[in-house]
Amino acid sequence: MTTVTIAILCGVLAVVYGFVTSQQVLRASPGDARMQDIAAAIQEGAKAYLGRQYTTIGIVGVIVAVILFFALGAISTIGFVIGAVLSGVAGYVGMNISVRANVRTAEAARTSLQGGLTMAFRSGAVTGMLVAGLGLLAISTFFWYLTGPAGHAPNDRIIVEALTALAFGASLISIFARLGGGIFTKAADVGADLVGKVEAGIPEDDPRNPAVIADNVGDNVGDCAGMAADLFETYVVTLGVTMISIALLIRADAAELMRLMTLPLLVGGVCIITSIIGTYMVRLGKGTIMGALYKGFWTSALLSIPAIYFATQYVLGDLHRTIGSAGFLDAVSDDLTTGFDRPAAAAGAIPSFTGLDLFWCMVIGLAVTGLIVWITEYYTGTNYRPVKSIAAASQTGHGTNVIQGLAISLESTALPTLVIVVAVIATYQLAGIIGIAFAATAMLALAGMVVALDAYGPVTDNAGGIAEMAGLPDDVRQRTDALDAVGNTTKAVTKGYAIGSAGLAALVLFGAYTTDLQTYFPDVTVDFSLSNPYVIVGLLLGALLPYLFGAFGMTAVGRAAGAVVEEVRGQFRDNPGIMAGTSRPNYGRTVDLVTRAAIKEMIVPSLLPVASPIALYFIITAVAGQAQGFASLGAMLLGVIVSGLFVAISMTSGGGAWDNAKKYIEDGNYGGKGSEAHKAAVTGDTVGDPYKDTAGPAVNPMIKITNIVALLLLAALAGGAG
Amino acid sequence: MTTVTIAILCGVLAVVYGFVTSQQVLRASPGDARMQDIAAAIQEGAKAYLGRQYTTIGIVGVIVAVILFFALGAISTIGFVIGAVLSGVAGYVGMNISVRANVRTAEAARTSLQGGLTMAFRSGAVTGMLVAGLGLLAISTFFWYLTGPAGHAPNDRIIVEALTALAFGASLISIFARLGGGIFTKAADVGADLVGKVEAGIPEDDPRNPAVIADNVGDNVGDCAGMAADLFETYVVTLGVTMISIALLIRADAAELMRLMTLPLLVGGVCIITSIIGTYMVRLGKGTIMGALYKGFWTSALLSIPAIYFATQYVLGDLHRTIGSAGFLDAVSDDLTTGFDRPAAAAGAIPSFTGLDLFWCMVIGLAVTGLIVWITEYYTGTNYRPVKSIAAASQTGHGTNVIQGLAISLESTALPTLVIVVAVIATYQLAGIIGIAFAATAMLALAGMVVALDAYGPVTDNAGGIAEMAGLPDDVRQRTDALDAVGNTTKAVTKGYAIGSAGLAALVLFGAYTTDLQTYFPDVTVDFSLSNPYVIVGLLLGALLPYLFGAFGMTAVGRAAGAVVEEVRGQFRDNPGIMAGTSRPNYGRTVDLVTRAAIKEMIVPSLLPVASPIALYFIITAVAGQAQGFASLGAMLLGVIVSGLFVAISMTSGGGAWDNAKKYIEDGNYGGKGSEAHKAAVTGDTVGDPYKDTAGPAVNPMIKITNIVALLLLAALAGGAG
Repeated sequence: MTTVTIAILCGVLAVVYGFVTSQQVLRASPGDARMQDIAAAIQEGAKAYLGRQYTTIGIVGVIVAVILFFALGAISTIGFVIGAVLSGVAGYVGMNISVRANVRTAEAARTSLQGGLTMAFRSGAVTGMLVAGLGLLAISTFFWYLTGPAGHAPNDRIIVEALTALAFGASLISIFARLGGGIFTKAADVGADLVGKVEAGIPEDDPRNPAVIADNVGDNVGDCAGMAADLFETYVVTLGVTMISIALLIRADAAELMRLMTLPLLVGGVCIITSIIGTYMVRLGKGTIMGALYKGFWTSALLSIPAIYFATQYVLGDLHRTIGSAGFLDAVSDDLTTGFDRPAAAAGAIPSFTGLDLFWCMVIGLAVTGLIVWITEYYTGTNYRPVKSIAAASQTGHGTNVIQGLAISLESTALPTLVIVVAVIATYQLAGIIGIAFAATAMLALAGMVVALDAYGPVTDNAGGIAEMAGLPDDVRQRTDALDAVGNTTKAVTKGYAIGSAGLAALVLFGAYTTDLQTYFPDVTVDFSLSNPYVIVGLLLGALLPYLFGAFGMTAVGRAAGAVVEEVRGQFRDNPGIMAGTSRPNYGRTVDLVTRAAIKEMIVPSLLPVASPIALYFIITAVAGQAQGFASLGAMLLGVIVSGLFVAISMTSGGGAWDNAKKYIEDGNYGGKGSEAHKAAVTGDTVGDPYKDTAGPAVNPMIKITNIVALLLLAALAGGAG
Repeated sequence: MTTVTIAILCGVLAVVYGFVTSQQVLRASPGDARMQDIAAAIQEGAKAYLGRQYTTIGIVGVIVAVILFFALGAISTIGFVIGAVLSGVAGYVGMNISVRANVRTAEAARTSLQGGLTMAFRSGAVTGMLVAGLGLLAISTFFWYLTGPAGHAPNDRIIVEALTALAFGASLISIFARLGGGIFTKAADVGADLVGKVEAGIPEDDPRNPAVIADNVGDNVGDCAGMAADLFETYVVTLGVTMISIALLIRADAAELMRLMTLPLLVGGVCIITSIIGTYMVRLGKGTIMGALYKGFWTSALLSIPAIYFATQYVLGDLHRTIGSAGFLDAVSDDLTTGFDRPAAAAGAIPSFTGLDLFWCMVIGLAVTGLIVWITEYYTGTNYRPVKSIAAASQTGHGTNVIQGLAISLESTALPTLVIVVAVIATYQLAGIIGIAFAATAMLALAGMVVALDAYGPVTDNAGGIAEMAGLPDDVRQRTDALDAVGNTTKAVTKGYAIGSAGLAALVLFGAYTTDLQTYFPDVTVDFSLSNPYVIVGLLLGALLPYLFGAFGMTAVGRAAGAVVEEVRGQFRDNPGIMAGTSRPNYGRTVDLVTRAAIKEMIVPSLLPVASPIALYFIITAVAGQAQGFASLGAMLLGVIVSGLFVAISMTSGGGAWDNAKKYIEDGNYGGKGSEAHKAAVTGDTVGDPYKDTAGPAVNPMIKITNIVALLLLAALAGGAG
């Protein structure tokens, strides 16, 4: 059985696991008629939103596909379509199980905490395994077809372009889904809170609030479907770029190349198995809910170490063998590990390495994942200094809460940056840019488990809302609240993980960019030195993109939330029966309003990272020639990651910390619910909402799109391979 | 008369102007006994704080001076001391006039708006001219001594090192002064507001508030003395690095080098004259207060164009002559303007240029200043979309106010970045890195006028406080409020201007770094290419510095403000007579508390940019060798500017916009004072305070220190020149 076949089978296994587990979820009781009514309204709203979102994205996608067809040919266009469609499917299926598991989780929480946990986590695991499984299937079947039936060599240009186009399809859909879903969920959430909790003084998820269904729809389309599309993209891009950089950088015979290029697929495959095993370890026992979830995560992570070891050995044989030793090195003679004295043209060159080196790089990737989980837990968990300091600052008012929250959000970038820097240095010393790529691959191999933890969150959030609206006993709501509380941390973890892996992947993408440049334009010598002012120009403009993108996202949420407030105020005014509880608010009108706002607001910012690299290249080329155009474009790719890493981490960790500072006060500290400190903490939570769920996470696909568009631009300028 | 002599005379003229104008200010009536009492308390607090601040800085300064003496020798140590002492003097004298002009402005505002404006602006102009005059005197007399009596050639290593050390002295003092003063002013301001306006419900500047004197002291030690030290640093570093890069990069005979190196001094000199003329144009007439201030600014800016033209012609003669045409170019043969095909070693190489090219570069510098003024006015003025959008968002609560404010702060980085990028491209095309340097010099040549506009702000702020505390009639307070309202914009302008010039100066500093590297370590070839992972590591860690620094600054303000709140609550509790108005609060104890907090909190963050480059170099050298140590250190210098530019602009513009959104509501929009929208806007204002007055502005000296420390490290590693 070839390695690719095993990988495909692992992908199928993940899909089968998803199908079987979703059947288990669906077999559970969906509760009483009132609960089913509410759940139906949420389902309807979520489907209506995703339907319209995908229609809009579909129009953009068709236009892009046509452009790709003429610029790069049929194979790349097919790759783009596969990436785009499967990214959409991952999001859609995740949403679909999530809107059914929510009511079942509420029902299960009637009897026990463990019951609720199992139901919600199973739903999350379905989404998680589908993201990893579909991602692996997309790449491995496409790669199998291209190298098998279609008969291309593994390092044929057409394979590089096809995999790039596949990644582009996934990325393009995911930025729309992340941003559109993010705007929807936070506009509804912020709007509902402002007009309900703050103005009308009714509790969260009160059925009298006309925005309450929209808020619950948002959890599904943003935190579930949008997140799933984002992580699908991250998975596909990371594995894809690892394979691309092997094809571009390594000089070896076809058999060796084939072995190396299929290793990321097998690593993805075996880690699907370890992730599935991990899902069965999520049980409460005597510990905390967070502890139960972590049991699953750590089981997967630790089992992955031997699994990756044996996978590497299975593919490469003797782990001490120097890989592609004959004719392997690029045309440079000096010591490549030190990186001295290399002309820019040999930038992509890498040192010789062994299978064991690659294994250690992957262990480093797993360690980075573990450290990011730990750091995120520290910055967003209620047991540590950061969250407590924000809660304490709430005692002196709204202003000091926000000041301290911003301080924590700035500070939270430091440790992840240091972890990434150390990982870059260590993996580069082991195996050059390929080492960095394999570390990123190992990080993403755990995506199934990480997404499972994340997708668990919106289900419990919805379950709480349904319990409240359906008037279930208080102890049910208490259980769903307890399940939901850890969701803030797991959500922040996924985002830190995605952006951290993006930091590594962006370096590999930049390596692919420079190598592509040498392949396509051997006569143009590009100066990527920091002393070239066009490099500085590219860095500055790249660094600007996350800021501008963040501004768009924040403004969109503010504007749409304001519209929700106006709409709800109008409903309260026109129909006094709503507040009295005698007549039902028009939930659908609010859902519809947020849908239109989110779709409208997502388009321009999503196109920013597509248009900017193209515009920069043509403007600088016109001013200073093509070589400087390429130099500033390359610098833009690094500028966007150097700045985006900080913008994204500060927003996602800061937002999580604000949210949990509120929860910490609600747990009875500093006066508890209803105190002045609590009001200040609600303000911080509101500010953190678009930070952590709209602008921050969408920076991850934005970084990748900028990079991939640059690669496609090079291919298009060179005429395309087919 | 030599060019240097003229420059020295212009510096003397500025000091004379400062002396004469301060006499005019002091001759005015200081008001009644109550007003004088209050002013005396502010004076005492400000002097006590600055005394302790300078003592602490002095200890650090002496340690650094001793290290410098052993690392680089006597001349550099003298340069360091001159820079440090004059930076301190500029801040001290500025504070000294400011604490006397405040009460006189309040008194003058009894009779007319014009009277108050004249008094406050004259005080600002004293500070402005002293900053520019002392800065120019420091460099030009030191340069005169070194090239005259001491007999060194203008491009002798000792001159480069001495000017670098001079800049270091100015920078080191200014980061402490900016940060210490910034923490003081905002801790007092935020603390006073929280406990007074919010908790006790008494108006701003109410004499019953025990923190009210500390708040007014803060305006003088932060917004005046700290700002003056910061701009002194910016002035000295910018002119100094322009001269250094001429010495390092240009191959010409000593006479031509002397001409080129003294040109920045003469440009600084003539612009002092145009700035002085501008100060006489600040009169109300029929227009607005902002219009009156702008009349002064635009007069200076427009007169500077012909003044710079004639200065350039005076120094260089025929403006069409190619400068240093024989033996001028570095040892590279290809077309240097395009920057293609240059090995890293020739990075510092510059194209040939004429005097006219330099003139146009300086005009571009003036244009950048004008554009930044215009953009900052747009983002922080009450007449435009950004501020109005924050005010409108206040209607739906604290949360939406902060969300919209953050969105504007992110967005406000875009236009300044584009302006800087275009200026870099245009000046580089005209005259290479030297062109960028001259553009920065022309920007800073207007420092006298820009600082005058800024230093006017704290005086009017204090005048308002004194009017309130002394119980002057309402119309006096209305006049001082009107004068104060434009202060938010002029303060934001100065910060945008300083950080914009830092963007240009940092590129020149990086050029100096690479050239120094080649001079000191000709055998080490350093790869500054973006495909070198150690470059990425340096970029990432450099980009981290402003975030970490910002986190420290925000936390410090939050913590110190919290301590103020506790202290004031204690005074209210222990002495009920305070609120009743029957007994006087203990102002001194609050001043003392804030003083201790600010001094304690400023030390660690101020040392961050000093220690980080040194630590990075030694760690990376240990891991991967010296060449990679140099590569990552160089990349850190650019990482800190690429990220710092955005952090600083977003904080300073965003903070200004929040402040004026509150003022816009107080002007009667969206319900005016006391409305719910106003309360939300007060929260935004509080958040903006440490953003715009503590963390944001201190990023500017931080960027410069990181760069200068790297230059000194190179010199020290190479053994020093004397």
